[in-house]
Amino acid sequence: MPADSRSEAELATLHKELEGGNPNQNRTQKTDKITVGNYLFDRLAQLGVKSVFGVAGDFNFNILDVIEDHPRLDFVANCNELNAAYSRMKENSLGVLVTTCVFFLECVTLFPTDVSPVSSFGVGELSATNGIAGAYSEIVPVLHIVGVPSTAQRKKQPLLHHTLGNGKYDAYKEMAKHITAKVTDILDVSDAAAQQIDEAIATCVIKARPVYLMLPTDIVQQEIPAQSLQKPLNITPPPNAAEKQQAVIDTVHDLVTKAQGDVVVIVDACVIRHHVRNEVKEFLKATGFPVYATPMGKTAIDENNPRYGGIYVGSITPPHIKEKVENAKLIITIGSLGSDFNTGYFSYNIPQSRSIEVRCCFETRSNNSDAVPKLHSDYTQIQYATFEAIGMKEVLPRLAEKLSSFSQVAGAIEVPRLNTSVPEETSSEITHAWFWRRLGHFFRPQDIIVTETGTANFGILDVLLPEKSVLINQILWGSIGWSVGATFGAAMAARELGLERVLLFVGDGSLQLSVQEISSIIRNGLKPIIFVVNNHGYTIERCIHGKHRHYNDIAEWDWQNLLATFNDKKHFETASYRASDKDSLSKILDDSTFASTKKVQLVEAVMNALDAPQALQKQVQASSG
Amino acid sequence: MPADSRSEAELATLHKELEGGNPNQNRTQKTDKITVGNYLFDRLAQLGVKSVFGVAGDFNFNILDVIEDHPRLDFVANCNELNAAYSRMKENSLGVLVTTCVFFLECVTLFPTDVSPVSSFGVGELSATNGIAGAYSEIVPVLHIVGVPSTAQRKKQPLLHHTLGNGKYDAYKEMAKHITAKVTDILDVSDAAAQQIDEAIATCVIKARPVYLMLPTDIVQQEIPAQSLQKPLNITPPPNAAEKQQAVIDTVHDLVTKAQGDVVVIVDACVIRHHVRNEVKEFLKATGFPVYATPMGKTAIDENNPRYGGIYVGSITPPHIKEKVENAKLIITIGSLGSDFNTGYFSYNIPQSRSIEVRCCFETRSNNSDAVPKLHSDYTQIQYATFEAIGMKEVLPRLAEKLSSFSQVAGAIEVPRLNTSVPEETSSEITHAWFWRRLGHFFRPQDIIVTETGTANFGILDVLLPEKSVLINQILWGSIGWSVGATFGAAMAARELGLERVLLFVGDGSLQLSVQEISSIIRNGLKPIIFVVNNHGYTIERCIHGKHRHYNDIAEWDWQNLLATFNDKKHFETASYRASDKDSLSKILDDSTFASTKKVQLVEAVMNALDAPQALQKQVQASSG
Repeated sequence: MPADSRSEAELATLHKELEGGNPNQNRTQKTDKITVGNYLFDRLAQLGVKSVFGVAGDFNFNILDVIEDHPRLDFVANCNELNAAYSRMKENSLGVLVTTCVFFLECVTLFPTDVSPVSSFGVGELSATNGIAGAYSEIVPVLHIVGVPSTAQRKKQPLLHHTLGNGKYDAYKEMAKHITAKVTDILDVSDAAAQQIDEAIATCVIKARPVYLMLPTDIVQQEIPAQSLQKPLNITPPPNAAEKQQAVIDTVHDLVTKAQGDVVVIVDACVIRHHVRNEVKEFLKATGFPVYATPMGKTAIDENNPRYGGIYVGSITPPHIKEKVENAKLIITIGSLGSDFNTGYFSYNIPQSRSIEVRCCFETRSNNSDAVPKLHSDYTQIQYATFEAIGMKEVLPRLAEKLSSFSQVAGAIEVPRLNTSVPEETSSEITHAWFWRRLGHFFRPQDIIVTETGTANFGILDVLLPEKSVLINQILWGSIGWSVGATFGAAMAARELGLERVLLFVGDGSLQLSVQEISSIIRNGLKPIIFVVNNHGYTIERCIHGKHRHYNDIAEWDWQNLLATFNDKKHFETASYRASDKDSLSKILDDSTFASTKKVQLVEAVMNALDAPQALQKQVQASSG
Repeated sequence: MPADSRSEAELATLHKELEGGNPNQNRTQKTDKITVGNYLFDRLAQLGVKSVFGVAGDFNFNILDVIEDHPRLDFVANCNELNAAYSRMKENSLGVLVTTCVFFLECVTLFPTDVSPVSSFGVGELSATNGIAGAYSEIVPVLHIVGVPSTAQRKKQPLLHHTLGNGKYDAYKEMAKHITAKVTDILDVSDAAAQQIDEAIATCVIKARPVYLMLPTDIVQQEIPAQSLQKPLNITPPPNAAEKQQAVIDTVHDLVTKAQGDVVVIVDACVIRHHVRNEVKEFLKATGFPVYATPMGKTAIDENNPRYGGIYVGSITPPHIKEKVENAKLIITIGSLGSDFNTGYFSYNIPQSRSIEVRCCFETRSNNSDAVPKLHSDYTQIQYATFEAIGMKEVLPRLAEKLSSFSQVAGAIEVPRLNTSVPEETSSEITHAWFWRRLGHFFRPQDIIVTETGTANFGILDVLLPEKSVLINQILWGSIGWSVGATFGAAMAARELGLERVLLFVGDGSLQLSVQEISSIIRNGLKPIIFVVNNHGYTIERCIHGKHRHYNDIAEWDWQNLLATFNDKKHFETASYRASDKDSLSKILDDSTFASTKKVQLVEAVMNALDAPQALQKQVQASSG
């Protein structure tokens, strides 16, 4: 269904599905007026948001009151960039639009950091800076709601705590402009307030980027007209221009015809971020083209798909896969995001004359685009020609229809057979070469797998993941410590969605940056398995530079003691394991009680400080060479 | 000695004292050229910097190499806003200028957060945002050195990891402008590079504000002329205009004469931040005026000074102190910083006709100063007249001389007697009313006391601190979690300075934000005592809003298990104690082994969630009323 043809009635139905009821359920009586706070949270609830993350603070108390009293929202204390992961998960199962819109209360965030500060304005939001910038970079919709001083205080500018002491109350807002798609400042309760809120939320969802929404303390409880809440918020992307789209379809068809159907498809990050997994699946089903994924596109399509041929990442791709991709007469990349670590350090060997890129197009070109040969997400490219503003969601079904005639030819193209066997090694030591393949036999359909920036992000590339499993990583932004909060957010979303297992893979160095978020995980009754790759420091950094430098060392903690220390009033059941060799790890993995994840569990896998996944070693060679 | 009269020879001597040797000691041979990296770190070493904080990351490896190989610097991994505290401590003992200049490598920081991310550009520096903004707000000099992509990459703008994915490589630099006194970008190795570095460091020290210094990866190892290193860096503030200064001195003298010497002095934050403790001490010695301190000025003068009369904080000052201050015919405030929590929510009862404010003047007035009635640190005010750019350091000795004739009259003015007795309570429960007074008998001269934003910042106001003790807090910025990193930094500096005890007072809620920095404390062999006020959540917030709201609750950790969990390879000696009643706590405090701080120690003091220091209760009334 093309985006532009969705009627209001259909939107209303969609919203009902998302929220499991009508827009105003649980409000006891309808009135013409509603407080700004309730307007905002009713809108978010309509869009399927159930959990609101944050930390209490001076300028956001009355916002927190609204949430704590809201019939359909829960406030989840102590958060983190996890929220981004919450966004990522919720979209995945709920479809296109909405629930991606996670509510960052006040600041949340923190990235490598962690829990986030107790206050809103200033201290809170600035602690979130890395997390918000990461969400921008990685194309994750996060509504960052900031409780700010009252409108009267903002005019008078007294020397309040949490200010810079220079009277510049707008400094944080100015900073936010660099790392968000939109900054919205609700300065009064004129009729425009509802529209401002609607636009902030819609921009966040449609662009899949963070939006910064400022709520002065005195505005939250003031009333505005409630009327527009009766109409579902339109969060469909803008429609493609019909004639231009037809030109794209015809041109692609001509090229596929010339290539005699000898086509491969590469799926990349924006398939996931802009919610076209289903459209891509249907496109592949209709055309029969072989399909490969980039590291950031891994699990964009199920890896048990018989037409799936593995990961393509430029020069560091295994030769039998590399050959299949690069020798095709035409390569269609969908949702590309050409970052260094996602492309084998820009080493794609695909000439433009054989390349089509169907990209997401909700961004205008940046001002300095002349200087930037390949900004992602801002155009559709067919060989040498650029077609601006042709959205993937609308064009993919049309392309599927047009190209379905090639399915027989394309279906005959061989895809590489992928090796899933666990290597036999003489040493009992746990190596990356063995570890990830061994884990491959532990994974199950619908697992949510979070991998930290570091060895885990590269190791996971060597594993074929089961159908309907979801991989969450942060390859472009690459801020270590991110994965712990991400696991919290993913586990919250997984529980809402009825999914069972969430598995985190994190190095000992990275885990130290955001470790306290494990406490939030325990306290909320979530039950992920946390695999700690204990390799005595920053192994990814040792690979890149300073193999034996002290700055790559860390303090070695007693990981077996961690869950017990953070367990809220010792109330929850936890279990910790330590594996120093292959047999011990296998024994743990083979235990059905362990695998059923009935409590929070931590598995410490001891590895050599200088051992690394092959893909990481090759990446380092590529970027230094 | 007036600032403008300091000769080059004198500066050279000062520098020698600070660094304990000549500017180029330990460099085996002098050459005409030096690498940019070594130039920078030689300069910092000249200024007494010994420890460089940070975390390893992709764009700063070659900077880290320079530090790790530097003969006079140590790289201290895993840092935090602590560094600000390092600055604060080092200035305290080393005098006026320099060693306040702490080197934040890459990002360090994090505030409530903690350890800081592994990389420089983007992820690392943005995690530091709260910490840097806090240093700006609180007037703490932090040189924030950021390892950024190479000059070639910055021109080409490829889609590197740690970028926003939009080609805007300058976004972080633009953001930094809002929270620093200067942004310096070393783009080539022309002769100007040395000057750029010198200006960056001098601005940081003189303005006592953070400076953001960008070092592209390819610049670090390139060579520049070494010559200017032979000349000590001039970090003295600009001289006062002689005639205007004389007018200030004469006007003040006239007013004191009219007041017949009935004068009181209030010392505030900028006495500490701009290093005029000694000048203030001499001024008070010469004049005999009674002296009071604000919360942020506490320990700016020794509290065992017989002329010291306690804390003045507007309407929430104890009545016998309030009366003495507000009834004086003339009130001279030195280094004032009129923030909400520092003034009893702007409740000073001091008419301008009886007020003189000797302020620090290294800031130009902000653009929107019309809207801001009282920006601190930017003018000297005598009654209704403003005298711009009259620096405290130069004018105070002259005022001391001019006003010394009043010493006999002023010396006869009574100061309030301060109550240091521990209240007798029937309940065995540890209350704030008892706790802080009891601690007052535990403190010793030269103790470094760090209090977290929360109940601790208010409780400590009730205690008379011993001579030469130093109180470190963060009342203006007020970002919870700050104190843990601050304690790390303060303990590093204390060890360098030969000081024995560092004592941290932190609530259980705040400690959760930055807890991992305790691991850095242990790993570096530091031995502070960590007092955890275990009162089951954010008590300060409960006082302000939402007494029984869930958003003020936290997970309750096993604090007795914490040091053991974070102990590096179980290598260090630690001890943990838990006191649920007064007797148990007293017994711990009375143990001489405990008090001698031969190992890292943690004391958990269990208190009621709704109990709070009186000053906090009054502050809440004042700000809500």
